[in-house]
Amino acid sequence: MATARELGLRIGGLPVGALNAITDVPGVAVGHRTLQGSGLATGVTAVVPHGGDLFRLKTRASVEVINGFGKSAGLMQVAELGTLETPILLTNTFGVAACTEALIRQAIAANPDIGRKTSTVNAVVCECNDGGISDIQALAVTPADAMAALGAAAGGPVPQGAVGAGTGMTAFGFKAGIGTASRLMRIGGQDFTLGALVLANFGAAGDLVLPDGRRPDPRSTPEGDKGSVIVILATDLPLGDRQLQRVARRGGAGLARLGAFWGHGSGDVVLCFTTADPVAHQPQTFTPVTRLDDGRIDLAFRAAAEATQEAVLNALCAAPATPGRNGRHFPALADWLKENPLT
Amino acid sequence: MATARELGLRIGGLPVGALNAITDVPGVAVGHRTLQGSGLATGVTAVVPHGGDLFRLKTRASVEVINGFGKSAGLMQVAELGTLETPILLTNTFGVAACTEALIRQAIAANPDIGRKTSTVNAVVCECNDGGISDIQALAVTPADAMAALGAAAGGPVPQGAVGAGTGMTAFGFKAGIGTASRLMRIGGQDFTLGALVLANFGAAGDLVLPDGRRPDPRSTPEGDKGSVIVILATDLPLGDRQLQRVARRGGAGLARLGAFWGHGSGDVVLCFTTADPVAHQPQTFTPVTRLDDGRIDLAFRAAAEATQEAVLNALCAAPATPGRNGRHFPALADWLKENPLT
Amino acid sequence: MATARELGLRIGGLPVGALNAITDVPGVAVGHRTLQGSGLATGVTAVVPHGGDLFRLKTRASVEVINGFGKSAGLMQVAELGTLETPILLTNTFGVAACTEALIRQAIAANPDIGRKTSTVNAVVCECNDGGISDIQALAVTPADAMAALGAAAGGPVPQGAVGAGTGMTAFGFKAGIGTASRLMRIGGQDFTLGALVLANFGAAGDLVLPDGRRPDPRSTPEGDKGSVIVILATDLPLGDRQLQRVARRGGAGLARLGAFWGHGSGDVVLCFTTADPVAHQPQTFTPVTRLDDGRIDLAFRAAAEATQEAVLNALCAAPATPGRNGRHFPALADWLKENPLT
Amino acid sequence: MATARELGLRIGGLPVGALNAITDVPGVAVGHRTLQGSGLATGVTAVVPHGGDLFRLKTRASVEVINGFGKSAGLMQVAELGTLETPILLTNTFGVAACTEALIRQAIAANPDIGRKTSTVNAVVCECNDGGISDIQALAVTPADAMAALGAAAGGPVPQGAVGAGTGMTAFGFKAGIGTASRLMRIGGQDFTLGALVLANFGAAGDLVLPDGRRPDPRSTPEGDKGSVIVILATDLPLGDRQLQRVARRGGAGLARLGAFWGHGSGDVVLCFTTADPVAHQPQTFTPVTRLDDGRIDLAFRAAAEATQEAVLNALCAAPATPGRNGRHFPALADWLKENPLT
Repeated sequence: MATARELGLRIGGLPVGALNAITDVPGVAVGHRTLQGSGLATGVTAVVPHGGDLFRLKTRASVEVINGFGKSAGLMQVAELGTLETPILLTNTFGVAACTEALIRQAIAANPDIGRKTSTVNAVVCECNDGGISDIQALAVTPADAMAALGAAAGGPVPQGAVGAGTGMTAFGFKAGIGTASRLMRIGGQDFTLGALVLANFGAAGDLVLPDGRRPDPRSTPEGDKGSVIVILATDLPLGDRQLQRVARRGGAGLARLGAFWGHGSGDVVLCFTTADPVAHQPQTFTPVTRLDDGRIDLAFRAAAEATQEAVLNALCAAPATPGRNGRHFPALADWLKENPLT
Repeated sequence: MATARELGLRIGGLPVGALNAITDVPGVAVGHRTLQGSGLATGVTAVVPHGGDLFRLKTRASVEVINGFGKSAGLMQVAELGTLETPILLTNTFGVAACTEALIRQAIAANPDIGRKTSTVNAVVCECNDGGISDIQALAVTPADAMAALGAAAGGPVPQGAVGAGTGMTAFGFKAGIGTASRLMRIGGQDFTLGALVLANFGAAGDLVLPDGRRPDPRSTPEGDKGSVIVILATDLPLGDRQLQRVARRGGAGLARLGAFWGHGSGDVVLCFTTADPVAHQPQTFTPVTRLDDGRIDLAFRAAAEATQEAVLNALCAAPATPGRNGRHFPALADWLKENPLT
Repeated sequence: MATARELGLRIGGLPVGALNAITDVPGVAVGHRTLQGSGLATGVTAVVPHGGDLFRLKTRASVEVINGFGKSAGLMQVAELGTLETPILLTNTFGVAACTEALIRQAIAANPDIGRKTSTVNAVVCECNDGGISDIQALAVTPADAMAALGAAAGGPVPQGAVGAGTGMTAFGFKAGIGTASRLMRIGGQDFTLGALVLANFGAAGDLVLPDGRRPDPRSTPEGDKGSVIVILATDLPLGDRQLQRVARRGGAGLARLGAFWGHGSGDVVLCFTTADPVAHQPQTFTPVTRLDDGRIDLAFRAAAEATQEAVLNALCAAPATPGRNGRHFPALADWLKENPLT
Repeated sequence: MATARELGLRIGGLPVGALNAITDVPGVAVGHRTLQGSGLATGVTAVVPHGGDLFRLKTRASVEVINGFGKSAGLMQVAELGTLETPILLTNTFGVAACTEALIRQAIAANPDIGRKTSTVNAVVCECNDGGISDIQALAVTPADAMAALGAAAGGPVPQGAVGAGTGMTAFGFKAGIGTASRLMRIGGQDFTLGALVLANFGAAGDLVLPDGRRPDPRSTPEGDKGSVIVILATDLPLGDRQLQRVARRGGAGLARLGAFWGHGSGDVVLCFTTADPVAHQPQTFTPVTRLDDGRIDLAFRAAAEATQEAVLNALCAAPATPGRNGRHFPALADWLKENPLT
């Protein structure tokens, strides 16, 4: 499938990374596990901040809950401590428990002191409801599926659309799923990257606004905005705790530019992490860290909004038309764009 | 001056109130006091939720701080208690103290028991920095100016653009100021209104996105997003405390649709109030109130986003081209729209 | 085992309910499942707000995160929507996933439309780390254990101390676990009850302060405050969303009065619900609800602080001396009180 | 007047600074302006974080709103940016506007670029209601009074009790006002100090609990907890943004240990700042800062709770018995302690 750019959409003005993907941020890896057949269209996607042991070297992070109608795990501790100590797993709403168990078991296997001689571990799992296409009551995702997604994690190009956790997701009445994008930032003579990966499953049919002002109509029965969207933002820019929080919030601006109003039934969550200045499990008493001048942070705000907006469009553009449950049909935005060329 | 609709812009799909103004919400009044000349272009705008004594009959309200780089007064207590007990005054950053004093004196004059036999009073004043056009160091706004705005408050059409607190404000490199808009909502067989009034002073030049996707260029030197925007949302829809908070948040979606990313230097605040189920100063122990089904609240979310977006465009469309301080010039969006007709 | 009152401690001045338990709130039930042997001392405790189907008739609730070093599930949605739609389960840190699965399966069994024709379900599970006594790496809690706790839920007296989720918990260097207490409130000529149930696993040895100012010394090696405490507050007092939130916060005052300072490593969470004005899954568009005069809410604040304080002391007084892992020993506060009589 | 320690009270276990005052933190200064006579008993207290120009070299800070029934100014921006750029002024509820004006004029006088060539300035003013003793309707505090308090600011011993902003304040039915205390912390082989200064005007008569468990009775008519308390915490310990926020929160634990439950009518606010790693108005793009290991932060939490608790007791012990308005009388806690010796 194509990307939004390949289909002619132009999103924002900042330069784009080599892959236009969250994996443009050095060290970040993504892996998918897709489950299909027997009424299932679901899966797991892993976002891995760095290649080491996250429990021993934690990534600094923030969480912004735009609308909390969701069932994610682990966010309370991220909000309090500002660190990630497992990879982030994305899955369907009823797969959270299985993914949590997998992350705990993986962390214990690598760190036998967990819960015995040191603290326990905080598994971070976010979710959307793919019940429009998949049989969510099957509770089909297993810890083994989560491990498979983690095992598949790699840098490089990221498969998008109906893959991994995105397999059964829809947005604005179209088939959607996983999307990614990135932006480059030159600050203080150095180059930095901000990448977004979204699990897009939100937006009522008819509400989507393209960057050129057009509003693609999926010709499906309008329903309320009952989906959700998870936005993962990654950067290598050194950001303080408060700055990370503020960048996370700007993911919501990217969603609003698409026509979203963060609907009541939508669990809209942004997780933002920086690979700069990670935190050891048992750090030195005092550690030097780098703080960015607040006066320069607007570039990161812009990048967060733009990359989020484009990642959702990529999720839409990469997903093929798909039949849903109960006789529904979810067309492909790529088909609409081809049928409705800009003259 | 013209409105955004008169200039051909179409914002959202919900029906619009008779005046397309916050005063479409029954009982809500708006008054302006404009100060101009001697290097000044500033003023005060009053938004009055109802015609009675607000200290005796408080309006239920919520506040959403989108980006807290601002100096507003009284928001902490609104956040805790969920009530307004004075009108809302808008002014320039250094006029907050004078407006606070005026609201306190007005409340004491009407309620001699304040601070003696009953509690004190919480004055609510919001602000933006009009230093790009006006000499803010003059601290020119006086309590008498605030009283003049309060005294001018009336229902009916609302003067927009470079008037009252909006006299010296700019947005996206254009002259801006006060704007308003409204939306109608039919819920449960009844008609309700949501109105927005904005003090628009935000957005970097070149960032504005019109609903049709065009990006008007003011041809001014780009600067950072160092302004602010205050959004007042009023409705007669019965909303619970939590619901009021959630509606307030959606004002931010309206701003983002205009191209804003809620810049670092921008104090972006939304105040939302409902005229339904007001709270007596000394109420009965138990009072019946009405709660809206959360499942119906998306219509209010949409209305908040749309009305905010249109109110900002109205502020821009109604304001004439104006010279600024230090040789700057702020063109009129209305002029740009006339010079760049959609073919 | 005895209660704090039976051992001579006096906590606060409000009258106490008939059982001095959360079950004094009409309709509230508690059930325990205890796992012991083979290195295990863990379990599950269920708090059930009413006897009906919680998914169909949701209880209004709030959550206050005092210190978020914890792994509870479901709190984000409670914070957004203000409702509980499953019972609350308490367990050990690594039992959250199993309890979540049990609550989902129970809800689906009773409501086959979940995730197919209506929304999914938000399972609420809170936890503390009982690794000081139990082998937490065993991941011993199963969905069947959670179902057993739910099945055991009943009104009437509540077993306290080393039982259910409290089996392996410790506080202030003493053995602790489950505790409960209640307070009566007469407001507007009507009688209301507020009850607390705690899972107490917090506080460094030597920090405990009794209501009479004494500081019991467990003579154990001081360690950091690495435990956690979950406080469940239940009432039949009609409280609005904002009021519920404010009452929840006062649980933290009860903890501080015991000498706690809400330590870094402690996941301190308060969940507060009212059985008044429950919310149907698909309610009428507008529903009348009752709002308490804010001016009367201090009585509920006092009750929350007192009941929380006493519930923790009851957890301590009811738990017998217990050997821990790695040669540790956790004495009983009841023994200390008998050895140190007030003259 | 005496201090709590001189009167035999023992608060916590951490070592105390040389002055047992907020001025034990190097560079911190305090100044008072007291207004008495003609029905007035009010004033202004200034807390100055360092001796330089705060607008040019900002102090990093956090704010915790325990209960937001208050009218403080400037807190929203502190919450967003985490910096103080003026001294902190404390005064009565209706003196906030005058103090705000003074801080703005002082900042402009020192920095003529404010609002013209650089941003405006955020004045931070906190307040309690001294209407029980003073005629608050007089709006007696002027900008000149605020300047006098700022001009009086000095290091060294801090006058406590009925002085400055504390002149007309009461707590738990006793006369109260300004109090201060400090704690020493040895972390990583270095010595650090945390100091508290409180404006104590909270707590219902009969609720006060001394560290030894006694409950002093002022024999006055019980009224609701309608006062407020402002807690200023200062330290030279390097703390990150998130850590500063968490330390601020622990001020609330100190209040609760005194018997407070953070009453509905009480505006309870904690401001916490560190003199470490200040922020230049126009900083380098990247600045190295020091981050404390979260695992060591409990010592700062303890210090915050203890110093807050002791500062309030000092405010009570230092204030003499005072007649109030409307025939009320506020006894001195010092007198009660002398009449009720511990045997």
